[in-house]
Amino acid sequence: MTTTADQPGPFSSVTVLGLGEMGTALAEAFVRGGHPTTVWNRTAAKARALVERGARQAATPREAVAAAPLVIVNVKGNATAREILESAGADLVGRAVVNLTDGTSAEARAVAGWAAEQGAEYLHGQILTIAPGIGRAESVIFYGGSAAVYERHRSELALLAGRGTLVSADAGVPTLYGMAVHGTMWGTLNGFLHAAALLSNEGIEVTRFLEQAAPSVSALLATLPSIAAEVDRGEYATPYGALRHHLPSIEDLVRESRARGIDHELPEYTLDLVGRALDAGHADDSYSRLVEHFQAR
Amino acid sequence: MTTTADQPGPFSSVTVLGLGEMGTALAEAFVRGGHPTTVWNRTAAKARALVERGARQAATPREAVAAAPLVIVNVKGNATAREILESAGADLVGRAVVNLTDGTSAEARAVAGWAAEQGAEYLHGQILTIAPGIGRAESVIFYGGSAAVYERHRSELALLAGRGTLVSADAGVPTLYGMAVHGTMWGTLNGFLHAAALLSNEGIEVTRFLEQAAPSVSALLATLPSIAAEVDRGEYATPYGALRHHLPSIEDLVRESRARGIDHELPEYTLDLVGRALDAGHADDSYSRLVEHFQAR
Repeated sequence: MTTTADQPGPFSSVTVLGLGEMGTALAEAFVRGGHPTTVWNRTAAKARALVERGARQAATPREAVAAAPLVIVNVKGNATAREILESAGADLVGRAVVNLTDGTSAEARAVAGWAAEQGAEYLHGQILTIAPGIGRAESVIFYGGSAAVYERHRSELALLAGRGTLVSADAGVPTLYGMAVHGTMWGTLNGFLHAAALLSNEGIEVTRFLEQAAPSVSALLATLPSIAAEVDRGEYATPYGALRHHLPSIEDLVRESRARGIDHELPEYTLDLVGRALDAGHADDSYSRLVEHFQAR
Repeated sequence: MTTTADQPGPFSSVTVLGLGEMGTALAEAFVRGGHPTTVWNRTAAKARALVERGARQAATPREAVAAAPLVIVNVKGNATAREILESAGADLVGRAVVNLTDGTSAEARAVAGWAAEQGAEYLHGQILTIAPGIGRAESVIFYGGSAAVYERHRSELALLAGRGTLVSADAGVPTLYGMAVHGTMWGTLNGFLHAAALLSNEGIEVTRFLEQAAPSVSALLATLPSIAAEVDRGEYATPYGALRHHLPSIEDLVRESRARGIDHELPEYTLDLVGRALDAGHADDSYSRLVEHFQAR
């Protein structure tokens, strides 16, 4: 590291390794933000549009890593991320590596551990948007790892997503946060699309339902903090809204779905979960008791 | 119908048939609101507390129905609701029956059709709260059926739930609305509790996750109107956030769940849904395309 490019600041140099749809969006955000940006991609042709906009293309990962104190990695899989970083050799020493590659928490930690051995500072980030969301105020990236890197490169990282958040010193945690958000999302979407199937089967516009039922649907999210607190305490007993209250409503949904010839597998899945908890003597417990089903398998 | 009790107004008479946990709460709301309230229940003893608070106990459903222009029914199952109303015979003529009994849409319509034949006006209501929520400003009841009954008895019905809404002239619709809200809720809770299992397995407080991830979790609901619009139009193509973008994240969640020994059935269910849609050539469609899976079975 030699030049003024090493100094953090509004115009510090940045390197981006990997120019898929997402990596390209990340590099574009830095170029747009006025940062000298060096890019590298295995298929060199993908850098063309970025170079036309002012990015510098490196011939090798090593050359790219040597070009900036901050190195962003976004490729397919953490094994590939490590392999590319490995080829930079001793040039990794003292660099701040921000790995935005998707994968499991164990994979993120493995790269973090290896990077520390190479003398690099390391931050793992989990992006919660798709490429067109990069650079937007409402977009979220969860970070875990070196707080020093996060603080020193706050201004560069802010160009990627308005809602960047350092959630842990542990590089494996952002991935888990991302999965927790996505898992909640898929659950919500599956339940909602089943509901949409029910309504459309009757000829009811789903848009109209949503307008009329908006307070009820919003109220769903309001229950999550109390559910979370019950899970954290491991105490599920509740005088109101216990599993015994859920049972007849789930049974009605199963009967309605069957009668209409729409999918009954999803409500039957819920019925089975609740039924098992009731059989185990948890009739007076909150729905949060079902976390124990998911915890042990 | 003979006395001033027949006149609608702040102190018009009301009858409540069925005094389970919910029926009792309904009757209490009317007593508290100053309405002369007549109650009936198969097991007469259940009326005791209400009578002490000023309610009048009828010996038969017929006597109860004859006592007020507005008759609320809340029992276990619409077959029972109809049986009880049937025993009132000719006294049903001209009464406004508001049936708040849970069940399927077909069951609600069957009672509505039968009540019309008896010369009664009919409104079906789907309560979206548990008994302690009756009378609260934020509680929701969806109504379907006679708009005349709904308008005439607005002030009485407002005592039951602050957010009463007439959603249709069809007595079967409130039930479907309730199922759609509940189905979305169960989907959300299942997804969230799986996420909670993942986080707690790592020793992360779910409460803390929810605080830090609040904007991401709230953003989930913001997507529902566009999902609803896609379902209504039957057009799912999207340049952003297509099913091909969801796939790798779902695969990561399955791998993470398996590696940790927590439930992998739920993420594999989602993986299967998305995988099937991709196999069918819908890679560039929004997640809303999956409604077709739920629609036909």
